[in-house]
Amino acid sequence: MTHLIAIGGSDAGISAALRARELDPTTDVTVVVADEYPNFSICGIPYYFTGEVAPWQSLAHRTSADLEATGMRLRLNTFATGIDVAGQRLTVRTPDGIFEDLAYDELIVGTGALPSHAGIAGLDALTPEDGVHVIHSMGDTFALDHDLTTRQPQSAIIVGAGYVGLEMAEAFITRGMQVTQLQRGPEVLSTLDPELGALVRDELTTHGVEVVTGSTVTGIEKTPVGLTVTGTRDGQPFAQTADLVLVVVGVRPNTELLEQAGASLGAGRAVVVDEHMRTGLPHVWAAGDGIITHHRLLGATYLPLGTTSHKQGRIAGENALGGDRAFAGSVGTQVVKVFDLVAARTGLRDHEAIAAGYAAATITAAADDHKRYYPGAHPIHFRITGDTGDGRLLGAQLVGRRGTEVAKRVDTFATALYAGLTIGQFDDLDLSYTPPLGSPWDAVQLAAQAWSAANARVLV
Amino acid sequence: MTHLIAIGGSDAGISAALRARELDPTTDVTVVVADEYPNFSICGIPYYFTGEVAPWQSLAHRTSADLEATGMRLRLNTFATGIDVAGQRLTVRTPDGIFEDLAYDELIVGTGALPSHAGIAGLDALTPEDGVHVIHSMGDTFALDHDLTTRQPQSAIIVGAGYVGLEMAEAFITRGMQVTQLQRGPEVLSTLDPELGALVRDELTTHGVEVVTGSTVTGIEKTPVGLTVTGTRDGQPFAQTADLVLVVVGVRPNTELLEQAGASLGAGRAVVVDEHMRTGLPHVWAAGDGIITHHRLLGATYLPLGTTSHKQGRIAGENALGGDRAFAGSVGTQVVKVFDLVAARTGLRDHEAIAAGYAAATITAAADDHKRYYPGAHPIHFRITGDTGDGRLLGAQLVGRRGTEVAKRVDTFATALYAGLTIGQFDDLDLSYTPPLGSPWDAVQLAAQAWSAANARVLV
Repeated sequence: MTHLIAIGGSDAGISAALRARELDPTTDVTVVVADEYPNFSICGIPYYFTGEVAPWQSLAHRTSADLEATGMRLRLNTFATGIDVAGQRLTVRTPDGIFEDLAYDELIVGTGALPSHAGIAGLDALTPEDGVHVIHSMGDTFALDHDLTTRQPQSAIIVGAGYVGLEMAEAFITRGMQVTQLQRGPEVLSTLDPELGALVRDELTTHGVEVVTGSTVTGIEKTPVGLTVTGTRDGQPFAQTADLVLVVVGVRPNTELLEQAGASLGAGRAVVVDEHMRTGLPHVWAAGDGIITHHRLLGATYLPLGTTSHKQGRIAGENALGGDRAFAGSVGTQVVKVFDLVAARTGLRDHEAIAAGYAAATITAAADDHKRYYPGAHPIHFRITGDTGDGRLLGAQLVGRRGTEVAKRVDTFATALYAGLTIGQFDDLDLSYTPPLGSPWDAVQLAAQAWSAANARVLV
Repeated sequence: MTHLIAIGGSDAGISAALRARELDPTTDVTVVVADEYPNFSICGIPYYFTGEVAPWQSLAHRTSADLEATGMRLRLNTFATGIDVAGQRLTVRTPDGIFEDLAYDELIVGTGALPSHAGIAGLDALTPEDGVHVIHSMGDTFALDHDLTTRQPQSAIIVGAGYVGLEMAEAFITRGMQVTQLQRGPEVLSTLDPELGALVRDELTTHGVEVVTGSTVTGIEKTPVGLTVTGTRDGQPFAQTADLVLVVVGVRPNTELLEQAGASLGAGRAVVVDEHMRTGLPHVWAAGDGIITHHRLLGATYLPLGTTSHKQGRIAGENALGGDRAFAGSVGTQVVKVFDLVAARTGLRDHEAIAAGYAAATITAAADDHKRYYPGAHPIHFRITGDTGDGRLLGAQLVGRRGTEVAKRVDTFATALYAGLTIGQFDDLDLSYTPPLGSPWDAVQLAAQAWSAANARVLV
């Protein structure tokens, strides 16, 4: 019987534990969880604040009872403090503050990431009780919920306009708050090209969000009139005050445990693992937001995503039991709903592809989600990136109204990236068509044809 | 300068003409169209009858003016009657009834298909003026429209429960008519397995359609009380009377012109072409519903679909100008909206795969379209077929509520079929996720995992 310990109650740790129990029900599996909320959907938190998800308990992918019913043991409110690699023992601090050593045959570390503070002065000293929030755990969720309920703040500054920032802007607007969104770059949602990010910004401003791009936040302080955020905007100093500040400027890998145990750091200062999720430390595996990401187009990078964590966790759980499964690699597929708009991407953008050595070219295109004669057709806006040498698809970005099936249209590109298809091969794809839901050449094919036309060699 | 003639104003002929003009604007292109409605979306006709599409002119993918603006010449109401292959001349009957010979360098035949009559006695003698209809052209559309408007029929029998039959059932119900749908097989939409077809039938009956399966129609006659359809149901004779009868029991390839010119017939008595759309007759190409279909899993078959016709037409247009493009093959991807349900399939079903020599196994699965905690989640019902030898995906069927992105989820399977992926590789696909639109393992991956689990070899 294998004694397996997984550290982390989020996607990677739970996926590893589930997979191990699924593959070999004789495996003794313990999951060490720092809080008391294992297997919660962190991606769902913004929808708790919009009021669409209630109660908060429903954010659990599985309840603790569900997890225990699979035969795993949960150690909640238990913090992993050290790994004795040679001795195959994990030291944890129990809820009672006692340190305890747990023996393992195989250890899977899924300690994830921590919110980045982006070097903002004053941020470390401010807490939810001051009205300054991050949103990365259920604890953060309860703190923000409490603040919103008790203080009834009327205005919020959101520092950052990535996925969570945009979703939280929607949540605050839904609650009737005034929202200012500060973004360092020239456009919101910097994972998209600005041409498409501008469509997302329009959606935000249409719904009342004040968007301030080109703004670098350098400090936050509590003042008599509220919380004042200071920084520079287009080189000029600026200050803005609100009742509440939410800082959502990305994450950094939480590597302390594995670093102390002797693991190496790589891209993004995340822990280096191989495609089998081996850390290089005997019997120690790792998965999730704390490790480097193998990317099919980039090699090793750092790209923390829940979908990737699920895959890596599943692989770590399998390999820890003697399996030989390799992580096939991410292509960085992502999607976000912003009010009534959906924005998605997969693969590389032009500058990313060029930086990685591809002969990239990128075009902009638009095509209706379904036949225009049928009611409710809307354009989907595309950016398509391909290699002008071999014609290979390198990436796609899509923005369309909710209901235009953008989220699953990006999956066609993601599947094509996985399979290494050329953009020309999109002409060969046998995609579904009925007038209310598509076109004889689907929008994704029309976008691909636009790239091919722009990059065609003379045929005849 | 190449003189190119395309016969047929529907998907194949127009696609060929457009492609030729696009590739080489010096090409002289004439399209011979039997009626005066080139480039109409036949798939959209049911939505004219629901009232969602108006006026009928909006069903045109492009207007005649749009087409002529590309530089092609349209010969409307002109019927191709004979091909002189050796002399490279096409004989046509003009709108004035005069026969005229047109010289060509290259000829592309896209004469499509004709409605099947399925051997129903009396059908040949009955016309739209009697209240008996087919629906395959704009002429059929006008005839039905006229009948509905002038006679105001209150009841309809639809013979057939395929795509068009189901869409027309919805249209008639929307117009307040009583609808009886007769289907030969054990379940409606026989392109799906009965397990999923039953969901479609439930949707029909919920909306008031009387569905009669297991019924073979042998005759239609005009009686004092209306139109009486007779046949057998589960071996017993039956008769049913209504004000209007619509016969939609599939199509047969319209091959007369090419047969007379010496072309060979193959699968489904359709004209044999190679992957380059060559008929074997010098300088004569063919595309669309009149020809055999190259299928990536089946080889040569007959599977008329608009999406395929567009691809074949485009290829014929390119190759007629000296190109060397091969049709990559269909995988039979299809989708239909039936009231608030969407049903899709791609690839092969179990019995089709077994008949084709694959070691097929098929499972049923269901998975939510998005995280259940977010409002509006609905299950998608799957049938997944794979090869138990090499694990290769062979087919997928999906049924879900409108809005569950079934139409574009089937495209992930279609793309995987194109690329020859195994079902196990679905675990590797980096598909998009946000709680309102998906799950960390997308529904298509959960369905694939269900197949893998049911067909797993012991791993550990």
